[in-house]
Amino acid sequence: MSTATEPVFKGWAGLDAKACQGNLDFQSFEPKKWDEDDVDVKILYCGICGSDASALSGEWGPVDGVCPQVCGHEIVGEVVKVGSSPENGLKVGQMVGIGAQCDSCRECVDCKNHEEQCCPKMVITFNSPFARGNGKGSISRGGFAKYWRGPSRFAVPIPDELDPALAAPLMCGGITVFNPLEHYGAGTKAKNIGIVGVGGLGHMAILFASAMGAKVTAISRSEAKKEDAIKLGATGYIATGDDLQAAFAAHARSFDLIICTSNPPEFPIADYIPLLRPRGVFCFVGIVPKPLEFGLFPLVMSSAHIAGSNIGNPDGIARMLKFVVEKNIKPWIQRWDMDEINKAMPSFVNGDPRYRFVLVNTDNGGKM
Amino acid sequence: MSTATEPVFKGWAGLDAKACQGNLDFQSFEPKKWDEDDVDVKILYCGICGSDASALSGEWGPVDGVCPQVCGHEIVGEVVKVGSSPENGLKVGQMVGIGAQCDSCRECVDCKNHEEQCCPKMVITFNSPFARGNGKGSISRGGFAKYWRGPSRFAVPIPDELDPALAAPLMCGGITVFNPLEHYGAGTKAKNIGIVGVGGLGHMAILFASAMGAKVTAISRSEAKKEDAIKLGATGYIATGDDLQAAFAAHARSFDLIICTSNPPEFPIADYIPLLRPRGVFCFVGIVPKPLEFGLFPLVMSSAHIAGSNIGNPDGIARMLKFVVEKNIKPWIQRWDMDEINKAMPSFVNGDPRYRFVLVNTDNGGKM
Repeated sequence: MSTATEPVFKGWAGLDAKACQGNLDFQSFEPKKWDEDDVDVKILYCGICGSDASALSGEWGPVDGVCPQVCGHEIVGEVVKVGSSPENGLKVGQMVGIGAQCDSCRECVDCKNHEEQCCPKMVITFNSPFARGNGKGSISRGGFAKYWRGPSRFAVPIPDELDPALAAPLMCGGITVFNPLEHYGAGTKAKNIGIVGVGGLGHMAILFASAMGAKVTAISRSEAKKEDAIKLGATGYIATGDDLQAAFAAHARSFDLIICTSNPPEFPIADYIPLLRPRGVFCFVGIVPKPLEFGLFPLVMSSAHIAGSNIGNPDGIARMLKFVVEKNIKPWIQRWDMDEINKAMPSFVNGDPRYRFVLVNTDNGGKM
Repeated sequence: MSTATEPVFKGWAGLDAKACQGNLDFQSFEPKKWDEDDVDVKILYCGICGSDASALSGEWGPVDGVCPQVCGHEIVGEVVKVGSSPENGLKVGQMVGIGAQCDSCRECVDCKNHEEQCCPKMVITFNSPFARGNGKGSISRGGFAKYWRGPSRFAVPIPDELDPALAAPLMCGGITVFNPLEHYGAGTKAKNIGIVGVGGLGHMAILFASAMGAKVTAISRSEAKKEDAIKLGATGYIATGDDLQAAFAAHARSFDLIICTSNPPEFPIADYIPLLRPRGVFCFVGIVPKPLEFGLFPLVMSSAHIAGSNIGNPDGIARMLKFVVEKNIKPWIQRWDMDEINKAMPSFVNGDPRYRFVLVNTDNGGKM
């Protein structure tokens, strides 16, 4: 074991469903019990993702059973302690990123194929019990904190060439859209791509897909984000308004792949199916609460697909980071001192990010 | 132009929605107006497919506007007349098969890629207006007849090694399941395959998928077809009964691909999604009338797909026929003299086929 700094585990905890209204409480927490494949990470940056707000405000279910909840799952920081059997070749002093998943069973076929994001026993980065080794039963704590402890497999090295603040939103939002873009062959098999929603995930999807060589069309309700979408790399823009069928009439059978980064309470998928090319894929990367409903006839007639995609594996995160360096991709972020999290979170919930907030632990060396 | 026999176009026409009850009327019909890429085919065999019964009995909409309807779209026969510009290298005397599609626009991107089954202007083999050349406006007439006329592109040569009666059900039912099995990599990428429904399409799907090297599980309501499914090549069998969740509990995350050949009035897709492996595909090859409804959470968590698949292209039919010869695949058929169609059709509607009825024009040389 080697150690640089003795970590002190303190973070901003949600204590009730009003946490996002400026009520996160800075307090000590118990990290997971140490295992020899763990690392301790001094947190420099942490992005804010919609899932943090959803968990904190009870949209995922009552918060009573999970408080105090230390959320945050777009974590970037410096390794300060390494066990005797680290994965990813981790060493003290290295910059790493941790996303929405922090452990998996290591025994199922998906783990053995290094598709850990498909492990049915995946442990997410906050509020979830670890299930292996000494840490079994410890609750995962996220990145709205000064230090993080967890399995080294899920701490992915950040390339030196990449501003680590920009790496933060890639760890969840980025990989969530990079994964399906890569899987469905953006720029090669999937030449025409639609991105529904220009927000945290959507703006990164546009950056990635255009850098992959695809023709990208942003699909948004109003014209408000058109200028940004074009700057991000889109060459097409559809402002749907309220009449989707009218808005889409000229775009029938246009898209090999549509990635939906928008999570409204319900989603009119039937209006979107005609946009797909034969064999095309409409891929949700988030959860729309109300069940989808659509007739089968157009899906069968165009041999199309409705799909879901869930984050990505550590190897995929590493490939994404390499791609981001190669293509010099820069997510659009606004930085907040993490000490200001109780101002940042209400602003996030208000829809202010253009397009991702990154919290900065300046005391740990993070840069504003 | 070369001609062997002067065709006389007569067939069994549905005159009202009671046609399947034994009321098909043998009468003359006008074939499409001749184009130089057409062939005339002396029909020896024609399979009966569920779509024939659906169209004839008004399930696809009122029959008033389409009667008389000469259905039948699993046609096998001998070329008796060839125009000056035949496709597929067709010659008089050759055995060919025609499936559910008999023309396409030839101008769209899908036609140019020889994915004619994706052409938005596809012409199906009965009740549909042709849209090109002299034939423009002629109504397509199917295989419950003595002769067929249509574009040579859609008349696919039958290999000499194949009993042409066995080729008939392959032309629609066969290609409908072969296409997604091939597309999703049965036996290679898709090693574990579920087939929902052991009927006309399902039994061919089991034959194909097992011959492709996949492990096949048949999924049926009762145990009644278990013995047949095993004989066809399935090694697993799930009798669902009425409690799908109980029936499927032991099979969670088992299947890379599930092909649904069953078309009940409504389909409980949400109960089937947990059966899929990550990245798995649930593929409908027919239309379930009631809209599908399912929650997104399991689809996203397992990065799975709900898909449709529509028949196949002439090149795919040719590949299927080659595969059937190589693997010595024999669909299970019962032959009826086509003159007995008014007995065969009520029996078909009654669910009697084990598993496909093939009508035989003995006067044209078809063999019982």
